[in-house]
Amino acid sequence: MIANDPYAELERRFARMSAVGRAGAILNWDRSTMMPDGASEDRADQLATLGVIAHEMMVAPEMADLLSRAEDGRASLDPWRAANLREMRHAWIHENALPSDLVEARTRASSACEMVWREAKKKADFKALLPTLTEVVTITRRVGEAKAAALGLSLYDALLDEYEPGGRCQRIDTLFDELEAFLPAMLHNAMERQQAAGAALPLDGPFPVEAQRKLGLEMAKTLGFDFHHGRLDVSAHPFTGGTADDVRITTRYDESDFTRALMGVLHETGHALYEAGRPRAWRRQPVGNARGMVLHESQSLLMEMQACRSDAFVAFAAARLRAVFGRSGPAWDAANIHRIYTRVEPGFIRVDADEVTYPLHIMLRYRLERAVLAGDLALADLPAAWNDGMKELLGIVPPNDAVGCLQDIHWPDGAWGYFPTYTLGALAAAQLFAAARKAVPNLMLAIGKGDFALLLGWLRTNVHGKGSLADTDTILSQATGAPLGTAAFQAHLESRYLSA
Amino acid sequence: MIANDPYAELERRFARMSAVGRAGAILNWDRSTMMPDGASEDRADQLATLGVIAHEMMVAPEMADLLSRAEDGRASLDPWRAANLREMRHAWIHENALPSDLVEARTRASSACEMVWREAKKKADFKALLPTLTEVVTITRRVGEAKAAALGLSLYDALLDEYEPGGRCQRIDTLFDELEAFLPAMLHNAMERQQAAGAALPLDGPFPVEAQRKLGLEMAKTLGFDFHHGRLDVSAHPFTGGTADDVRITTRYDESDFTRALMGVLHETGHALYEAGRPRAWRRQPVGNARGMVLHESQSLLMEMQACRSDAFVAFAAARLRAVFGRSGPAWDAANIHRIYTRVEPGFIRVDADEVTYPLHIMLRYRLERAVLAGDLALADLPAAWNDGMKELLGIVPPNDAVGCLQDIHWPDGAWGYFPTYTLGALAAAQLFAAARKAVPNLMLAIGKGDFALLLGWLRTNVHGKGSLADTDTILSQATGAPLGTAAFQAHLESRYLSA
Repeated sequence: MIANDPYAELERRFARMSAVGRAGAILNWDRSTMMPDGASEDRADQLATLGVIAHEMMVAPEMADLLSRAEDGRASLDPWRAANLREMRHAWIHENALPSDLVEARTRASSACEMVWREAKKKADFKALLPTLTEVVTITRRVGEAKAAALGLSLYDALLDEYEPGGRCQRIDTLFDELEAFLPAMLHNAMERQQAAGAALPLDGPFPVEAQRKLGLEMAKTLGFDFHHGRLDVSAHPFTGGTADDVRITTRYDESDFTRALMGVLHETGHALYEAGRPRAWRRQPVGNARGMVLHESQSLLMEMQACRSDAFVAFAAARLRAVFGRSGPAWDAANIHRIYTRVEPGFIRVDADEVTYPLHIMLRYRLERAVLAGDLALADLPAAWNDGMKELLGIVPPNDAVGCLQDIHWPDGAWGYFPTYTLGALAAAQLFAAARKAVPNLMLAIGKGDFALLLGWLRTNVHGKGSLADTDTILSQATGAPLGTAAFQAHLESRYLSA
Repeated sequence: MIANDPYAELERRFARMSAVGRAGAILNWDRSTMMPDGASEDRADQLATLGVIAHEMMVAPEMADLLSRAEDGRASLDPWRAANLREMRHAWIHENALPSDLVEARTRASSACEMVWREAKKKADFKALLPTLTEVVTITRRVGEAKAAALGLSLYDALLDEYEPGGRCQRIDTLFDELEAFLPAMLHNAMERQQAAGAALPLDGPFPVEAQRKLGLEMAKTLGFDFHHGRLDVSAHPFTGGTADDVRITTRYDESDFTRALMGVLHETGHALYEAGRPRAWRRQPVGNARGMVLHESQSLLMEMQACRSDAFVAFAAARLRAVFGRSGPAWDAANIHRIYTRVEPGFIRVDADEVTYPLHIMLRYRLERAVLAGDLALADLPAAWNDGMKELLGIVPPNDAVGCLQDIHWPDGAWGYFPTYTLGALAAAQLFAAARKAVPNLMLAIGKGDFALLLGWLRTNVHGKGSLADTDTILSQATGAPLGTAAFQAHLESRYLSA
């Protein structure tokens, strides 16, 4: 088949792949929120079939020719279409780099390993995980090698490029070195200040799920979440799923502690606003996709860490908390709640970490996964290396591997090269929020009244509305005046934890 | 591509179509239960894309050859595979009968008409519906003609064959004539007896949704619904969706009246048990599909009308109702509740009709849709013809078209040829239940204790386990000793409404 307008034909094909992908996104959401436990095999078959169908569309024999011919005519395309074509090529290279048996082997190995991991974690038994994890690493290396060859990158960069297109080790090393230069001292000082100030008063429960849910709905709405185009539900681990027109966020409730559920909602709402805020006209094309996991995580952390743990917002939220839970007294003062929400303390668990210690958790994982993939660290030695790293970076040693190297799903799940995007996202969040505060007069005043329209407007213009039009650094430079750096993050931590 | 084993290749392809179809089934369920209102266009795009993908798989150029070659080797296939091949051919003929522009036109016309219908019904404005309904009828005729040519059937039979493979007008005419010969007199007599007995005591609400939901879950479980493989949720109109491994039933709650929600659950549970009960090994192949809408409806009505409105079950249920709602007194006696659940009265609305008047509603629609499709009745004259028919069959005339010819979604939705399966299903339900009672000693005793294992076992063996191995009449003959007839239904109505 020969298309007269190869670019238009590519748009048609990518729109179809998008529809299959969006169908899969809803089915994935359902799997984590609604699906009865006996249906997992059935659902896996549905999702695998949709995956194969989308893969076959991408590697169809006509695609190479369509892409080349469209690229020959690139000069006639407007900037969005030209960028879309670039993103199509990038997606095609990633998909074509792997023979289909490797795609299948990867899926199978990570599914099998994930299942073993759930049990191994319960029993803190790293040895039980070793065989399947070894298989995952072997296959991940083959994937990385194939993509490295196709993309002209190093193995680790090729894997990282799946999550953060254009992301490179060299850059991460520089940024992480800068962080490591100030974080340990900052952590020490922040904890000293905290100790001098005395412990925060506890917020005593119980906090009924229904009240927490009501609060979550209200707060998501406050930030700008549109419930005509989304839902809030419950899952074991909070996530943002669904589609731009139908964003599904989740959290989980603990009746003795509402703070994690609430911060979960605020975090996922940040992701959701990015999903919903990319240009409507490009939603079904690659250029309308999220730029990468760095900007995605920046949007959740900008809401959760930058905006919603600010004095201004906590003062607003404290009044709502007292009303929703019917409480009063000194524990429910804004100042006390702010202390709870900005508490710093080294801990074993990454997902529970505060924003000062979180990057240290990430650095550890980044070091270790690079060493494993490079063959410099045998998997059997991972637990010891983990514990050494925790001692060095955080000054504590986990009592067992369940709260050590078995805690995260990412490695068993095959997501090697993903971890650094969390901390790069935190840097981007600080940098974007600082730029927004500078650009928008009275931003914190509005946030203190629960009015997020100004902030959202700025994000829509400077981040969401860009989709994948440019690379992460270009978007950041246009929005903030500089590519990704550590200065804004450092200034933010100093301001929040070491001054006033 | 040439497959060495054409039958195996067909199984592979149909399994893939099944996975796409099952994915679509979950997305359809989500649309009616979970999806936010702003996502309908997005979802329509996903579902249309999956539909096109499945259609393209079916009409792929290799399919004709694969089917012919597999049929040449039919002698070597076991009965299940031979039946599967027959069902593959049948599905292929239906799908290939229509050029893709007609498939698309049909979808578009019925979507457009359904939207107009929602408004027209609200305003009782048939004229507003006329243009889009005319378009639906025009396209339905083209579909019917194309399928009639491919199947060697009359236009109406070709449409009916989509819902009930092998269903034919001639047969329906005979059965409906038999019904018409006794139903009017029976209705008259039942109402006289009812009047003589005096009105039932009302069950006064409110009945909190949470208590109704709990009751629904409990009753579905009692009938045999497996919540490891399914869910119960809320939708505007109750339905059964999802997949065999993941059956999703719905109902809707009215706090002033629990009876409709409960009967909705029992009805949908009957459908669900049929979905879950077909042979596991054939779930992803055509021979594992429901035999047709007649047996499907028979399974819901067997539970709702035959088993669950029996004296035995109502006595069991009444105790549970008193406990769940915390009520007592004469209104909550089994005898009074049974009177409520077996009340007979001509009304305007089909979905609210009792089992005596229900077939009369169906006969009206069957007459009218045949006349419209044959060109013997102009659509503009439909409201008058409807009212005349209601007068003749039920003795009442609707005050407006909203409770008249605008009440059902089926015609706007393009489901012409579907209505008769409701009443054929009611006949099959009576016939199957009578056979089960004869075959299984102490069946009603068990049901009176809330034990449905014996009934479910008999249905699994005689109906569910057959899948699409044989045609409806063969399955019914093997299970009951006779093809579909009216005798068991008549005997059932006489026993419930005119004796004891």
